[in-house]
Amino acid sequence: MHNWLLPEYIEDVLPAEAARLESYRRQLLDLFRVHGYQYVMPPMMEYVESLLTGTGHDLDIATFKVVDQLTGRLMGLRADTTPQAARIDAHMLNHQGVSRLCYAGTVLRTKPDGLARTREPLQMGAELYGHAGIESDIEVQRLMIKALQLLGMQTLFVDVSHVAIFASLSHMAQLETQQEEELQAALHCKDVARVKALVANLPVKAQQPFIDLTHLHGGIEVLENAHDCLPDTPEIAQALQEMAAIAARLRSPSVEVTFDLSELRGYHYHSGLVFAAYAKGYAGPIALGGRYDEVGAAFGRARPATGFSLDLRGALLALGPAQTSMGVLAPVSDDPALQTMIETLRAEGTVVVEALPEAPVHYSELACDRILQKVDGCWQVLAV
Amino acid sequence: MHNWLLPEYIEDVLPAEAARLESYRRQLLDLFRVHGYQYVMPPMMEYVESLLTGTGHDLDIATFKVVDQLTGRLMGLRADTTPQAARIDAHMLNHQGVSRLCYAGTVLRTKPDGLARTREPLQMGAELYGHAGIESDIEVQRLMIKALQLLGMQTLFVDVSHVAIFASLSHMAQLETQQEEELQAALHCKDVARVKALVANLPVKAQQPFIDLTHLHGGIEVLENAHDCLPDTPEIAQALQEMAAIAARLRSPSVEVTFDLSELRGYHYHSGLVFAAYAKGYAGPIALGGRYDEVGAAFGRARPATGFSLDLRGALLALGPAQTSMGVLAPVSDDPALQTMIETLRAEGTVVVEALPEAPVHYSELACDRILQKVDGCWQVLAV
Repeated sequence: MHNWLLPEYIEDVLPAEAARLESYRRQLLDLFRVHGYQYVMPPMMEYVESLLTGTGHDLDIATFKVVDQLTGRLMGLRADTTPQAARIDAHMLNHQGVSRLCYAGTVLRTKPDGLARTREPLQMGAELYGHAGIESDIEVQRLMIKALQLLGMQTLFVDVSHVAIFASLSHMAQLETQQEEELQAALHCKDVARVKALVANLPVKAQQPFIDLTHLHGGIEVLENAHDCLPDTPEIAQALQEMAAIAARLRSPSVEVTFDLSELRGYHYHSGLVFAAYAKGYAGPIALGGRYDEVGAAFGRARPATGFSLDLRGALLALGPAQTSMGVLAPVSDDPALQTMIETLRAEGTVVVEALPEAPVHYSELACDRILQKVDGCWQVLAV
Repeated sequence: MHNWLLPEYIEDVLPAEAARLESYRRQLLDLFRVHGYQYVMPPMMEYVESLLTGTGHDLDIATFKVVDQLTGRLMGLRADTTPQAARIDAHMLNHQGVSRLCYAGTVLRTKPDGLARTREPLQMGAELYGHAGIESDIEVQRLMIKALQLLGMQTLFVDVSHVAIFASLSHMAQLETQQEEELQAALHCKDVARVKALVANLPVKAQQPFIDLTHLHGGIEVLENAHDCLPDTPEIAQALQEMAAIAARLRSPSVEVTFDLSELRGYHYHSGLVFAAYAKGYAGPIALGGRYDEVGAAFGRARPATGFSLDLRGALLALGPAQTSMGVLAPVSDDPALQTMIETLRAEGTVVVEALPEAPVHYSELACDRILQKVDGCWQVLAV
């Protein structure tokens, strides 16, 4: 009979935490705004054809589906806002030049995901369309760093990879799709034995680069080592050069840049530089992003695109318990001077709770630590 | 191949309109906050048992359902946040005294609904729990009026009804559930012929009050007329008295109070005073609310409750097209003085878009009407 219990990995956000989330949500949206990223609100649901095309199997299985009673067609509840923003850029705005968009909203996933282990992340992100150069990757990564610093994370680690490296190796080795996917999964886990087994049927010369990828993670020396041990294709050379340029531009006393060439998160979706941001006190990445020039192609208009997103709930996990801001309790009274005083306080942003007749007063429940009281004929705010 | 087309009654909100929605969303949440209403974020989905219990058939058919892959149980996507807030009051907060909660979020409906004819309203509302007196009804109605005035509606009409009147008549006439529902529907449409047909099998004395309800709408004289023609039960007398008290307390030069005793919207859900707010330029009600003391009972803890909600998208419909606020374009440059200038402007809230190398400049696409330019060795903001 506990019909008020929520499903697993689905939670209410109660007042103190909701106020904190809302405050950071506003600060992040304001940050995006002053950088020229325009807020858009894509819908919670779309036909699966528009929601999932070009995004890969992972997103498909993470997406709840419902039947549209008006048409009988299948709709999905968004599990990621990025493809929706790409659709808006491609078809709603239809800009010839650069577009910058941002968003903030609930996404739903069939299984818990990310830092917060929730099925209902509060996804916020910023995306830049229409520019293929590395300067736009740098712009969105700098914006991501500012966003995380605004959330109070002082020391950040940005881990950079580039999907063109694996793509080039895969192309040279003429891998089948199935083999390619298994290899990605093994590389993601840095499972050297499994990688060796999966490439065993390739020519000996083609095997080693895949095995090398599992070791190519760490500081700037990784790029030098990669240059030495990976084949000298134009794609790999350019990828290594872009990664070096990113590192030079992002590194600062508070931002360390690292590399991990076996990181292929979102390979089907991303097309160039990919990155993940980490901070002290967090078990996993806080923000993820990268280049995904091909997503728009599914909507008939491929545009260069790069961006990042984070789950605001996950990003606030390492903070302490949220504090409730306390207000002022006003007594039951018809005195017009009291009403004036109440409205003046509220206009200044102070919370004023009006007592109700015959209701017991619980200061902590009402979140009040002060009262309005008449002293010498004047209404004054006094501590309880 | 138009796989980017959205389902009917589902829309993207593009930058200018999204910025306006976000601005009003913040202003309304701030208004609720300074009145002591604490923001909560209930989940987008719950088991149908918690989402729909005690709410009636209408909400059930408006609710999209999905299967929880973790448990095989049926979950619903919220079509109304009010029952969720009641659940939070009853079980998460568990206050002994008065609670005030507010919320702002997407709800999803299987069919288009409300002023905006959308399946994805942006529902905002405020609810007060733990107080049964008329003072709490007055508090939430005053808050609703302030909210609508904040949205720019100067002249408001608040239409008041009271479900206890129909409930008392229905109880006296010993109506069956089926007959009661049909009668409500006929009264809602003021279909006198249909009402007459539905009560034809009742004793003659019991018929007339139901027929009278269809005429009892208009100004304050309605209460006098109701007193004359409706049976003199304690419930009806109290209901009429409460309506008179509400009218006396709410009426002002900018708020007209009207009555409609056949209005039984949400009869299964509401239990006392119900109200709807109208404004010039809108075809239907902008905000709806009322008392629903029984909803918490479904969760094992009935609490007095009253509140209101509105669809922010619908409420903004009568406004003109949204204006895009324009920013400043900064050229591509490594000059540290330019970077300082850019960050100073952004800290003041000005939008500064940084140009990207080799990207064509479209001022309107970038929403910029000023540029940063070096004049006599100093960076200055100039009109384009």
